[in-house]
Amino acid sequence: MSFKNNVQSLWHIFLKKILAMSLLTVGTVAFDDIQTPYGHAENAIGGAATYISLAASYFIKENRLVSVIGDDFPQATLDLLKNRNINLDGLQIKKGEKSFFWAGRYHDNMNSRDTLDTQLNVLADFNPILPATYRDSQYLMLGNLTPAVQMQVIEQMDARPALIALDTMNFWMNIALDSLLEVLKKIDILLINDEEARQLSGEHSLVKAAKIIHTMGPRFLVIKKGEHGALLFEGDKLFFAPALPLQEVIDPTGAGDTFAGGFMGYLTKTKDLSFTNLKRAIIYGSAMASFCVEQFSILGLVDLSAAQINDRVQRFVDLANFDINLTLD
Amino acid sequence: MSFKNNVQSLWHIFLKKILAMSLLTVGTVAFDDIQTPYGHAENAIGGAATYISLAASYFIKENRLVSVIGDDFPQATLDLLKNRNINLDGLQIKKGEKSFFWAGRYHDNMNSRDTLDTQLNVLADFNPILPATYRDSQYLMLGNLTPAVQMQVIEQMDARPALIALDTMNFWMNIALDSLLEVLKKIDILLINDEEARQLSGEHSLVKAAKIIHTMGPRFLVIKKGEHGALLFEGDKLFFAPALPLQEVIDPTGAGDTFAGGFMGYLTKTKDLSFTNLKRAIIYGSAMASFCVEQFSILGLVDLSAAQINDRVQRFVDLANFDINLTLD
Repeated sequence: MSFKNNVQSLWHIFLKKILAMSLLTVGTVAFDDIQTPYGHAENAIGGAATYISLAASYFIKENRLVSVIGDDFPQATLDLLKNRNINLDGLQIKKGEKSFFWAGRYHDNMNSRDTLDTQLNVLADFNPILPATYRDSQYLMLGNLTPAVQMQVIEQMDARPALIALDTMNFWMNIALDSLLEVLKKIDILLINDEEARQLSGEHSLVKAAKIIHTMGPRFLVIKKGEHGALLFEGDKLFFAPALPLQEVIDPTGAGDTFAGGFMGYLTKTKDLSFTNLKRAIIYGSAMASFCVEQFSILGLVDLSAAQINDRVQRFVDLANFDINLTLD
Repeated sequence: MSFKNNVQSLWHIFLKKILAMSLLTVGTVAFDDIQTPYGHAENAIGGAATYISLAASYFIKENRLVSVIGDDFPQATLDLLKNRNINLDGLQIKKGEKSFFWAGRYHDNMNSRDTLDTQLNVLADFNPILPATYRDSQYLMLGNLTPAVQMQVIEQMDARPALIALDTMNFWMNIALDSLLEVLKKIDILLINDEEARQLSGEHSLVKAAKIIHTMGPRFLVIKKGEHGALLFEGDKLFFAPALPLQEVIDPTGAGDTFAGGFMGYLTKTKDLSFTNLKRAIIYGSAMASFCVEQFSILGLVDLSAAQINDRVQRFVDLANFDINLTLD
């Protein structure tokens, strides 16, 4: 290769880096069977990576996905993801195998659900292989998976990403705590729900829980409280974002992943890891989650306009904003 | 009476009205027996009116209380209330009778509690009698009591107060719904918790519940969600205030009443019923409630400085505040 070609190539890499920050998402792509008081969705599209990537797709162009499915997955859905500019080079399709399947029924209050069935299928021996073109991703979102698989992904990166975020669940705290603690040392942001934060820290008070979890590695902690909003901790700094009160919550499935996708999408777009900007990312994540729960499965996330998202964010501003003078004397 | 005396008297009344807006609180003054994971408080001072009046005392001078107690109530507590400028002319003391008593035990998560004992005692035949000097009160806070008793209070006012707020509970919805619906027609602000809002409206969605409750009378609806904050509704306008995440919640007893007291105290002080100002009142109420739960019984509310309250409100500003540009395109 000539000197000129080398320079062009380096220049091209440089431009790509600064113009289009890339997000790599690793997680499940799956079928869900969902029962809520509003209906029953069979063979619905689900999976953490699906929700995360769709939500992030409204913020970024370089949106890379690593997952595994069987050959039972509809081509129309893959086309839909591609049309939203989601890079599926890292999506393994296993011939003759079935995709991960989850079935659940929500209770009347939508706050709790029973798992009716879980079939790991292709996920049972998921070995995430990052395409060479993915290994320079600057932002990395590790969806809820075996901690060992999450670690494998980190180890395949060319360089340490600018930001690594991780979602996990109580299940891994129960059966794989040691490897979870290992991967927590490698990450910047942990996203978990309030009960998981309590279990991981052994503290009921979320303020105390956050202090303990910070010592495990993550500089930032996001505690998701579903319909009760989300908390962001960085050391002693604390921010709370409400969830938007909605007329109807049709299907809460994927709300937490959608939140994570909006959050990471916004951070990848803005390249600013200040607490002030993370607050904004939390609001964008909350806005995306509010679209998610208004419809079954991924339907609320496939065709949003920028104006719709901006309007939704404005509703959060109106909801949470107040001005006050500390005039008491 | 001479013309000059009449003018002086009218002038005096006028000055009193504009200089010192008055809040009248009607509710229980009681003994509590409280068990939480942090300890056991026996013969603790409690009661809705106690908490409301104490919280309001940091905002206003004309702070009037109507309630009933037995002669078993400690003089030191009455002195403490008087020293905080709470007018006890409307506090009936029944010779030879016992004060209202409630005993409860909080579960480990502090979100739910069991009532172990309730002894109505003097409350069984409570007949609220407003002293003549109370009947011009501009702001009226009706603590949780039989709806018929709340109505009796409204009927004794000289003129319709500028603002009537009311707290109630599911118990009255179960056994006295008709009289509750009658009194709801007379009020401006209803303060209830989320489960009560759902029961009263028959709607799970709080957005839908609020629409229905508005049609029952109250222009404003405050839905208290405990550790999950509070919502304020006025027609289509909606505001959410978080609760402050705390290191320790020692005793949640009285938090809702303290919230109401701070809220009404701030409104009485500022005389501004705009939505913008009601938001501020919600924040001040939330700040007062955060002091309440940090100690057993009323201990967190007896000796606060203006600086402490201002600092606490600033923590709410820091917690909830974000600035965002709607730049998505």
